[in-house]
Amino acid sequence: MMNYQTYLIDLDGTMYRGKDKIPEAKIFIDRLNEKNLDYYFLTNNTTKTPQQVADNLMNNHQITADAKHVVTPSLATADYVKNMFDDDVSNHSAYVIGEYGLKSAIFGTGIKLNEVDPDVVIVGLDYDVTYHKFELATLAIKRGAFFIGTNADTNLPNERGLVPGAGSVISLVETSTQQKAKYIGKPERDIVDYAVSEKGFDPKTAVMVGDNYNTDIKCGLNAGIETLLVYTGVSTHEDIAKETRKPTHEVESLDQWDV
Amino acid sequence: MMNYQTYLIDLDGTMYRGKDKIPEAKIFIDRLNEKNLDYYFLTNNTTKTPQQVADNLMNNHQITADAKHVVTPSLATADYVKNMFDDDVSNHSAYVIGEYGLKSAIFGTGIKLNEVDPDVVIVGLDYDVTYHKFELATLAIKRGAFFIGTNADTNLPNERGLVPGAGSVISLVETSTQQKAKYIGKPERDIVDYAVSEKGFDPKTAVMVGDNYNTDIKCGLNAGIETLLVYTGVSTHEDIAKETRKPTHEVESLDQWDV
Repeated sequence: MMNYQTYLIDLDGTMYRGKDKIPEAKIFIDRLNEKNLDYYFLTNNTTKTPQQVADNLMNNHQITADAKHVVTPSLATADYVKNMFDDDVSNHSAYVIGEYGLKSAIFGTGIKLNEVDPDVVIVGLDYDVTYHKFELATLAIKRGAFFIGTNADTNLPNERGLVPGAGSVISLVETSTQQKAKYIGKPERDIVDYAVSEKGFDPKTAVMVGDNYNTDIKCGLNAGIETLLVYTGVSTHEDIAKETRKPTHEVESLDQWDV
Repeated sequence: MMNYQTYLIDLDGTMYRGKDKIPEAKIFIDRLNEKNLDYYFLTNNTTKTPQQVADNLMNNHQITADAKHVVTPSLATADYVKNMFDDDVSNHSAYVIGEYGLKSAIFGTGIKLNEVDPDVVIVGLDYDVTYHKFELATLAIKRGAFFIGTNADTNLPNERGLVPGAGSVISLVETSTQQKAKYIGKPERDIVDYAVSEKGFDPKTAVMVGDNYNTDIKCGLNAGIETLLVYTGVSTHEDIAKETRKPTHEVESLDQWDV
């Protein structure tokens, strides 16, 4: 078995379940730290900043994390947008549907806000989305703006059930524009490529760890990175039995994994 | 050529173009009235009440119309909902995303409003739609509520361009619930079946008149009603050339049609 040098780790279902702790997850991260191995949390959450994500891990789950450990579609999308243009990104403009986590990353690049005729429209999860925002995004994309969706997750869990995720919000704009978005988050390889280039690790000695075959494991497969499925979240043994492309490794809990 | 007794007539693109008049349309309706022929306006607009639709025709286009001439997916959906239950509709409940035209029709049946655990969720165009409304609809449908979409139009024109229509709003809920809605408006035959039973005309001597192949003409084809395409709106000669199922009749303008 490969001695992985870098762990790319999902959050919900892998490090915790909503507000509930997964005790083996904290122990797993402690063991990575003891061996001085690299790890990054690859989440599809775009609503929070890296610092907010790290604070939640530290304060609510006692998992050692700082903002540098966190990789989100917000950061990867901001990087993608910066690289879209030959000249300086501050010569260009964007319209964003999303929460502060996404907006701070995108406008942190220096790109200008433009509600009418932007170069790029970025759509992610927005708990305050309105018809007016959908109208602005639709008209801008129809005028020729490049259309990015942060991530395709159709749902996310909250205390009331499975509520609409970024992929649902994006699907409205895909229908109204009759265009597919360019996606960045898991299972797209873009978020891994961003992590590799930003953090400077070797993907050949990295492993993607997660509970969800359709996001985490497919992302590893798409990026050519080995994968470790942990059965503490979404995917079941029955789900995996149906898949022709299996995870590299499978464990019931992270306690079963020797780092 | 058949002497049609009943004309089912589209509005935007057929009777007017947005705020712009189509003079032949007023003359056409005047000719129908001279011959004492039946006519009904079959629109996919769910935001306005029949009286508001008739007032717009009368006041802004000098087209003779009263509320009884107007058939909308709001009315047809209300009728569909009434017929869903064996017992009285007032024993049941609904959650509605839509404007007043839709809500007044649905709650006019006597069905109760229920945001948490309704029997049926109805989604249509809502200029004040929010994430919260999408969340309520999603959770209710996932709990088992029957899912109705008023009409599938992806866009509608306004003075700023082609903005999101009911079909776009509904697609968000289809994605978040992973379920297809039951549609009522054109091109579904449900709205015609409602008109036939409510107005009491013979579909064999009726004709569907409209400018849009994908809504008006397909609706006639689905309902087994003859069709008259008028080239004053969306569909072009090139569009119709590609279709294997042609309209029964085609005219450049309604002036060319002998009633």
